[in-house]
Amino acid sequence: VKNINYTKDLIKKINTKKISVGIIGLGYVGLPLSILCAKKGFKVYGFDIDESKIKKIKSNYSYIERINNKDIKILNKNGFFSSKFKNISNCDIIILCVPTPLKNKRPYIYHIKSTIKSIKKFLVKGQTIILESTSYPGTTNEEILNKLNKDFDIGKDLFIGFSSERINPGVNENKIHNVPKVVSGHSKNCKSVISNFYSQIFSKIVIANKIEIAEFSKLLENIYRSVNIGFINEMKLVADRFKLDIFEIIKIASSKPFGFRRFDPGPGTGGHCIPIDPIYLAYKSKKLGFNPRFIELSADTNIKVLSALIKKIFYLLKKHKIPKNKAKILILGISYKKNVDDLRESAAIRLLDILLKKRIKNISFSDPHIKNSINTRALTFNSRGINITPQNLSKFDISILMTDHDKFNYKMIYQYSKNILDTRGRFKVDSKVTRG
Amino acid sequence: VKNINYTKDLIKKINTKKISVGIIGLGYVGLPLSILCAKKGFKVYGFDIDESKIKKIKSNYSYIERINNKDIKILNKNGFFSSKFKNISNCDIIILCVPTPLKNKRPYIYHIKSTIKSIKKFLVKGQTIILESTSYPGTTNEEILNKLNKDFDIGKDLFIGFSSERINPGVNENKIHNVPKVVSGHSKNCKSVISNFYSQIFSKIVIANKIEIAEFSKLLENIYRSVNIGFINEMKLVADRFKLDIFEIIKIASSKPFGFRRFDPGPGTGGHCIPIDPIYLAYKSKKLGFNPRFIELSADTNIKVLSALIKKIFYLLKKHKIPKNKAKILILGISYKKNVDDLRESAAIRLLDILLKKRIKNISFSDPHIKNSINTRALTFNSRGINITPQNLSKFDISILMTDHDKFNYKMIYQYSKNILDTRGRFKVDSKVTRG
Repeated sequence: VKNINYTKDLIKKINTKKISVGIIGLGYVGLPLSILCAKKGFKVYGFDIDESKIKKIKSNYSYIERINNKDIKILNKNGFFSSKFKNISNCDIIILCVPTPLKNKRPYIYHIKSTIKSIKKFLVKGQTIILESTSYPGTTNEEILNKLNKDFDIGKDLFIGFSSERINPGVNENKIHNVPKVVSGHSKNCKSVISNFYSQIFSKIVIANKIEIAEFSKLLENIYRSVNIGFINEMKLVADRFKLDIFEIIKIASSKPFGFRRFDPGPGTGGHCIPIDPIYLAYKSKKLGFNPRFIELSADTNIKVLSALIKKIFYLLKKHKIPKNKAKILILGISYKKNVDDLRESAAIRLLDILLKKRIKNISFSDPHIKNSINTRALTFNSRGINITPQNLSKFDISILMTDHDKFNYKMIYQYSKNILDTRGRFKVDSKVTRG
Repeated sequence: VKNINYTKDLIKKINTKKISVGIIGLGYVGLPLSILCAKKGFKVYGFDIDESKIKKIKSNYSYIERINNKDIKILNKNGFFSSKFKNISNCDIIILCVPTPLKNKRPYIYHIKSTIKSIKKFLVKGQTIILESTSYPGTTNEEILNKLNKDFDIGKDLFIGFSSERINPGVNENKIHNVPKVVSGHSKNCKSVISNFYSQIFSKIVIANKIEIAEFSKLLENIYRSVNIGFINEMKLVADRFKLDIFEIIKIASSKPFGFRRFDPGPGTGGHCIPIDPIYLAYKSKKLGFNPRFIELSADTNIKVLSALIKKIFYLLKKHKIPKNKAKILILGISYKKNVDDLRESAAIRLLDILLKKRIKNISFSDPHIKNSINTRALTFNSRGINITPQNLSKFDISILMTDHDKFNYKMIYQYSKNILDTRGRFKVDSKVTRG
């Protein structure tokens, strides 16, 4: 038998663009990545255990608002989509983009574990497996490398690494290739194969010395945001005590050209990153005997800031002598951040849930990105969103601006709302507007 | 009696550069500001209760390393310096740059109070008083306005405001005029006079709506830093548990072009801003019924990170079987940040103090900016600093890099130190170097 140099062969195959890329998990991370690969001329195998996603892709329909049907069409030209893993054998590069959520407030890496279990029998020598799902340092080694190093000689006939995704929802889904791509690998060969691959599709590659360094760096990026949002939300609560408007304070501080970065307060964080990723690091760190308190405090402030908002709602109702059972409340913006249709961990959903539990029955929402009734793991709300019209706005006692979509007609909102509780600093505080 | 329009008169005087500026407190803030005013052609009256400072200025000698004697000479050409306040009567603009430290871990605004008490009898109609000392929101109104509004018609014949200083020690002392200047005033007239004045000497003026907004914004700027340094120091402790080098992680995370700002861990914060300013806000906020926990946690992490360093020192000594009473330790860098000669609240001083208390007798320090023995409020240490030489370095069991001055010869330090404890990420971790 000839001694095959899998490293050399694979790199050659990559550089001549003759590789097939398998992407497992076709959500917010996997779908844009698949499109990017297809556009660069790679054959793409897309996998998702959710049959409905496979069907939608096959019929050229995008299930993510920010991704065009046109791009799904391009994907289908050179792509094969399935909920079964048989085609894994045909892939040179296999990338895991599966969800890493929380379950019972703890990291839930079941999808990584089950994926590896499912694809194991289809793996062949000369392949590369890359984790793009965010998880705590050690995941790639514990859940992928250690599960495969009995059957393969890692770094010789199977290459393993981690590469973080840096998607900014609502902003860069269609230009992720411009963001520097962090890569890491188990050995020198792994690093070499993986960085060669990503340099085909990303404009800049950043190589981490160790897989755990890359894994940790992704968490650090998001925990930085989580801490700063938590901090500025706490500063909002402080400013409230001083009867000062935090947004005015932030505007002034932002004029400092060095040593200050603007973060804006809000009604509490949402999405797949900020409320979840920090818990991953905290969980593993606690196991190692150290409790990272900034993470805990940030998560805690997230809850506190929504409680403060709810207090303000009831204060306003009381001030205007509106009994709870007659209160009419409009929630403006229901997604977790502006200009997206993403409801995951949204503070507006939490607010809606709490208000319903507090027996406020007359609640509506309006969101230019979400028209249908709400059916998430956290909440079922059977009314559809309403449109912003003078008539609609004037029906409600309080309009609460939760998510400041650019598509909102703020002039109309201001003119026709009776009272505005503004959590985003879009309106100036006056007799009608209270800072939320 | 003719009805005098003090506002109009003063603005005219400012714009024709015929004003005299009185600066009270000639330290890190007041001295550069005095020089700036003198260079722009204003007559300067400088006041400091510290006679020795007045003497030094009069003999053209700068007591701040980063300020040249040449500039003190310029100052003397058009300046009058005294420890007595009689000349306050001659000043059109009076700026308070007095210290606002802590006493018993609480804000100590005695210097503001006593200054106002002392200058009160010399005040005349048509003057402007500006506070540049950092303090909690409300200070200007409580300690200046409320103390003078019985004798003056504020906004008519006396103008009062707050303007934050944005000096970055070791970096911008000689170009503070390029940093946007935040100004505020009690009334429209006050804002007008004060922004007219500062626009003569600063290139950009930022007007805050309220004095308290300006006061709070200065604290927010520094608390942002304090929180982020606290956070990254905690991340260092987490990385230690994972046996990863935090500096490698930060380097990778810093490649993210949006949503991340690099902060570096260290042995604990120092200087006049970061350890002190946050306490000012926390103090007043607590009085208003709200305890800002990010501030507390940041201060606490500051202590924790030094304790962790001390543990590492004793671990290293034990590892190398060096008994405590024979241990020889060299502290590299004794100022609170790099490239300055400022010892205020320095972590290196705290370390020195703790090591001495733990009966390590053989300690030396080396600092290119501080040669003399140490005599601060916190510590008296009678040995002078030593120079970095091969012979000197090889005498010590551990060299601890506390402050990473650019003037250090790092190659020599690496070559001749027996063991290095590096708190600043200047060296790569290896058999000789431990991350501190």
